[in-house]
Amino acid sequence: MAGSWVPDTAQGSDFSLANIPFGIVSTATAQAPHAAVAIGASILDLEALASHPRFSELFPSLAGHETVFSQPTLNGFAALGRAVHREVRNGIQDLLSDDTPHPEFLRDNEELRKKALLPQKNVKMHLPMQIGDYTDFYAGYHHAYAVGVMFRGPQNALQPNYSHLPVGYHGRSSSIVVSGTPINRPVGQILLDPTAEPKQPSTGPSRRLDIELELGCFISRPNEMGKAIKIDEAEDHIFGYVLLNDWSARDIQTWEYVPLGPFNGKNFATTISPWVVLADALEPFRTVGIENKTQLQDYLKDSRADSVFDIRLEVDLTTPEGDTTTISSTSSKNLMWSFPQMIAHHSLGGCPMRTGDLLGSGTISGPEPSERGSLLEMSEGGKKEIFLYGMDARKFLKDGDTVTLRGICRKGDMAVGFGSCTGRIL
Amino acid sequence: MAGSWVPDTAQGSDFSLANIPFGIVSTATAQAPHAAVAIGASILDLEALASHPRFSELFPSLAGHETVFSQPTLNGFAALGRAVHREVRNGIQDLLSDDTPHPEFLRDNEELRKKALLPQKNVKMHLPMQIGDYTDFYAGYHHAYAVGVMFRGPQNALQPNYSHLPVGYHGRSSSIVVSGTPINRPVGQILLDPTAEPKQPSTGPSRRLDIELELGCFISRPNEMGKAIKIDEAEDHIFGYVLLNDWSARDIQTWEYVPLGPFNGKNFATTISPWVVLADALEPFRTVGIENKTQLQDYLKDSRADSVFDIRLEVDLTTPEGDTTTISSTSSKNLMWSFPQMIAHHSLGGCPMRTGDLLGSGTISGPEPSERGSLLEMSEGGKKEIFLYGMDARKFLKDGDTVTLRGICRKGDMAVGFGSCTGRIL
Repeated sequence: MAGSWVPDTAQGSDFSLANIPFGIVSTATAQAPHAAVAIGASILDLEALASHPRFSELFPSLAGHETVFSQPTLNGFAALGRAVHREVRNGIQDLLSDDTPHPEFLRDNEELRKKALLPQKNVKMHLPMQIGDYTDFYAGYHHAYAVGVMFRGPQNALQPNYSHLPVGYHGRSSSIVVSGTPINRPVGQILLDPTAEPKQPSTGPSRRLDIELELGCFISRPNEMGKAIKIDEAEDHIFGYVLLNDWSARDIQTWEYVPLGPFNGKNFATTISPWVVLADALEPFRTVGIENKTQLQDYLKDSRADSVFDIRLEVDLTTPEGDTTTISSTSSKNLMWSFPQMIAHHSLGGCPMRTGDLLGSGTISGPEPSERGSLLEMSEGGKKEIFLYGMDARKFLKDGDTVTLRGICRKGDMAVGFGSCTGRIL
Repeated sequence: MAGSWVPDTAQGSDFSLANIPFGIVSTATAQAPHAAVAIGASILDLEALASHPRFSELFPSLAGHETVFSQPTLNGFAALGRAVHREVRNGIQDLLSDDTPHPEFLRDNEELRKKALLPQKNVKMHLPMQIGDYTDFYAGYHHAYAVGVMFRGPQNALQPNYSHLPVGYHGRSSSIVVSGTPINRPVGQILLDPTAEPKQPSTGPSRRLDIELELGCFISRPNEMGKAIKIDEAEDHIFGYVLLNDWSARDIQTWEYVPLGPFNGKNFATTISPWVVLADALEPFRTVGIENKTQLQDYLKDSRADSVFDIRLEVDLTTPEGDTTTISSTSSKNLMWSFPQMIAHHSLGGCPMRTGDLLGSGTISGPEPSERGSLLEMSEGGKKEIFLYGMDARKFLKDGDTVTLRGICRKGDMAVGFGSCTGRIL
């Protein structure tokens, strides 16, 4: 793929011409949140772009949907379906490319360029989608096993259903925030002495505040209630992907989660990265996930083997003093279930998936000690220190800590990245 | 309280003058969904009422919010807060009362009466609220105990946390439907032989389709993320109540629910009654719930003892042949946790509750065999037939069965009812 004429758009950067992720921005002159794409260190303001009189000539699939980029979420655009997302992304790549076939439209149009091409650092990012329901799966095999050992011992680490279906639970959509939003340490019921009988909880701030390194997937096209989405049609219901940090209070979770699952241990905050990387942008980075030797039910049989993505994921912890340590580095291929499998399972009983619904992969950990997606795993259940730069160490998060997730795919000199997903504990 | 001049408004009926529940209707002449209240066998169309030139004189608290009753959900009205709900309900009661102080406004105004007062049977009911998040609690003690025995045996029926906090889980908001919507029998993974090793599920329609008799509570005023709602302020965040049937596929649930809770066994459908009974309308029916002898954490200590409501609840099962049997009759006082306790717990860690969020009480069963809120309990886990009129019997629901929940409070000759919450299995 050619390069871009936009300054500071290295081919190996997160927001190369091969990416073109979509987000919702507000700018100094257009303060109502609206749509943009990221290119290099800039954004291309799509509301401004759509004001060009020849816009619908270059983007015919948006005819009748001209206001879709002026809306405060990407839901309207997402609902138009994957064929439209593809055409629009290709059209934007054409405009931004070194050898653009339409130089007069944007590259040589100083007035539009000044209005539409802005430094990323000068815009404010918002939640990209209005999220109806948020579902968190548990598809990261190494995480599920390691945490299962801690909660239930090695014998019952993975329940018998784990390899037969993608286990998931309904999360809380009201507390999903965009990267950069500060995170309050939650207060909750905690069992300080789990061995004492009778069990006596107390109430206080979580002492075991943790992260979960996840990939999030946004739904585009809805299904009708009562009609399952077949696995081979699931890709047509995917809009794109974000990084997701499912902040977790382990001490609250441990006491509350039986028998109905996690609740206050999870619902205080979930952070997502602001740029939605479209499904098409990840296509070149497909790979094979963790082998599942179980004989699967037909509705979960994916006709393609390369059903997950090889995204290099990293977790940085920055102390209040400003020292940053990369505490984990793994790949999103460490999933035993693909998003199409999750979607096929989620809708099997007829549950309607709506435009903007968010699915989390579950925590992604690799097999090696350096690849763990939660502090719970890194500290072996709070038993071991995680050493940091600046002569510091952690078992769980301290007030003032900042956690940043990063994700990027590379193939030759092509790169597609997610930017960062960050949050600081107040 | 005086009677109403509206025909067919018996004081003992569900929609007496003492009630005035709010809902969303569409009518032959006003097809866009908008707000109404129920009175006797009629509805009072609030959009039509608000078109009266003197409307804002009688309803001064709605000044600046004149379009709130033209919206397709009650969220805008709910967000105005309890003081406004009270003033508006009182104002409507004044208009509809036998001794109305404003007879010229509606009672003697034939033109407005013809436009605004319509037979309930001629209007279509819609979901009353746009529901952001749906949370289902487990506060019905007798149900939790009985089901706990079946799933985990009498020793572990109630987990140690049960009496310390209102256990709940996040439900699925996309599949909440209004009374009357047909229900698809869900397909799911089921373990036909739970004793065989290794465990081998199969996929097919649920054979153990069940109901859950619940009370639903809608949130009015939101809290800021990070700020818990104190228990003594929780009433100010409650808009009103509906009946709720949390349809459940027990066979799917049993196999999937460890370790993260119910998922496809629940997310295929939840039915609610269409009329929201305002919090104020239930005030006269307060009573004491099930005693909890546990020393509670401070944030769960309710300063009032009468924190639940004595609503007479009934479940009717109508066979495809049309024979109806009342299979359960109990009271909503059979809760060990009140909605203020649920709200205080839910928001303890800072989780934001938004206008329109729905909380389910959990299944309400009484202590007696005739008071069970699910077929799972009535059939003792599918072991015993539930006998019906028409020489029929059930363990779980058959295709073509209709389940109808009803709820009414009575005190002297005053009654406040919910109407019905019904659904037929396709």
